Amino acid sequence: MSLVGERLSEMPQAVLPMERLAIHQVTLMQCDFRASIECFARHGVRQTAVWLDKLNAIGTEDGARILEDNAMSVNALCPGGLVSGAHALDMDAALEMNRRWLDHAAGIGAASLVVITGGLPEGETNLFAVRERALEGFHRLIEPARASGVRLAFEPLHPMVCGGRSVISRVADALDFLDALNADDVFGLAVDSYAVWWDLDLAASLRRAGPRLLHFHVSDWLRDTEDVRFDRGMPGDGVIDNRRLRKWMEDAGFRGSVEVEIFSEKNWWRRDPDDVVRTILDRRAEFL
Amino acid sequence: MSLVGERLSEMPQAVLPMERLAIHQVTLMQCDFRASIECFARHGVRQTAVWLDKLNAIGTEDGARILEDNAMSVNALCPGGLVSGAHALDMDAALEMNRRWLDHAAGIGAASLVVITGGLPEGETNLFAVRERALEGFHRLIEPARASGVRLAFEPLHPMVCGGRSVISRVADALDFLDALNADDVFGLAVDSYAVWWDLDLAASLRRAGPRLLHFHVSDWLRDTEDVRFDRGMPGDGVIDNRRLRKWMEDAGFRGSVEVEIFSEKNWWRRDPDDVVRTILDRRAEFL
Repeated sequence: MSLVGERLSEMPQAVLPMERLAIHQVTLMQCDFRASIECFARHGVRQTAVWLDKLNAIGTEDGARILEDNAMSVNALCPGGLVSGAHALDMDAALEMNRRWLDHAAGIGAASLVVITGGLPEGETNLFAVRERALEGFHRLIEPARASGVRLAFEPLHPMVCGGRSVISRVADALDFLDALNADDVFGLAVDSYAVWWDLDLAASLRRAGPRLLHFHVSDWLRDTEDVRFDRGMPGDGVIDNRRLRKWMEDAGFRGSVEVEIFSEKNWWRRDPDDVVRTILDRRAEFL
Repeated sequence: MSLVGERLSEMPQAVLPMERLAIHQVTLMQCDFRASIECFARHGVRQTAVWLDKLNAIGTEDGARILEDNAMSVNALCPGGLVSGAHALDMDAALEMNRRWLDHAAGIGAASLVVITGGLPEGETNLFAVRERALEGFHRLIEPARASGVRLAFEPLHPMVCGGRSVISRVADALDFLDALNADDVFGLAVDSYAVWWDLDLAASLRRAGPRLLHFHVSDWLRDTEDVRFDRGMPGDGVIDNRRLRKWMEDAGFRGSVEVEIFSEKNWWRRDPDDVVRTILDRRAEFL
């Protein structure tokens, strides 16, 4: 049986080197733009993904300078997309916002803009209609993205936020979506372990994704999770075997960074930021 | 594209007749065993699924008498299974519990015992190992179930309870699981719209399930849901098109009842039970 084969083929995994560790800015929600970047730099973390709200609060020019002053690489700007009609008055408004986000991403030297479809607009219950609207929106983003030189990293989200955030939940469904877009020079995939760990087809889907794998986000699923969005755990505190998932990513050809992205209203967002980063570094040897 | 085909092939759906409506006892968590059954009967609802905790509180004999006095059919007893090692000291203890539940189910004339795998035991992060343990457990339940004359209705649950309740999340994965069990005289499928509505492959998976479809549970996914288990909505209040899902079930050959099963700690479990049942009856014409 292939599932057993999956298990038996596991090998001890090399410790993630520091130069392949990124921490998303949103992991330090308690900090402003500058404080979060300086905190990462202080601990030798040299890669981040910028959180759009934090960038908007300070502006792209100041943001870019702070990143440069701290020798910080930017893997991505998060999140864009949201073209399903649930988050903007109409498609044109959503596309205009995305063009602005692409400019911001280019302005801070981000390799990618992470994009999600958005959820079901008020009154809509047809997933397929929303999927098609999102497909149309992303089609219309191909040229602006190409012009900006920024990749669009499409991210499926956990089924529990299907209504509100993304009608594409599985890696397999995301790949079908990218097949339909047929623009692999622009689009790739962002895989978040928190969103997809439960999927029994995950290893096979990652193999299918192959060179489309652009980003790997990690956190942990807490056994006693209390919130559908903001109660993610620190790797090692929950049920996700992030190291096994990294192996699957790497077996599929992925050579990028492991990006720690923790939304945690009740715990990590309330702690001392240095403590949060130190904990991530401590967990690196065993859990990343 | 097949997804578009799915959408265009939709036809207006006949209103669900009263004799195909069931309400799960757990929907009236605010009532004891007797009060819930009498409330259903008072409103002309003649089918229910019994909640194990409520039955345990009163005993199988008294339960059976109350059901009979109210001319109530019992579609199922819920929930059993839980053989993953997360909920019992060992496999033998879990199987012993299930044999007792099968006796209870037979004692109240339930057609099925609804079973779930259980979640990840403490310290375990390997979904496939847990799946295999659950498979072994269910294999060992085949003979007791056959002897009892009660079907085992296997239910995949939403990925957000994968850690705690079920390592099988999708209908497709449940069918693979049933294929491996290879005992279709004993096992069938319980499909809960709340658990699977987000799955883009759902219609195809239901077609594959065909005659294995034993039960259809419905509630609604609230846009602003606050809890991973106990914040389900009344059909019509959320984003699930239960009527479309019923059509897919029926296109696959399902002729059973629509069973309303609402877990709602903050709303429906606090209301007057007659009000809850009246609301369900009101929603029948448009949303079931």
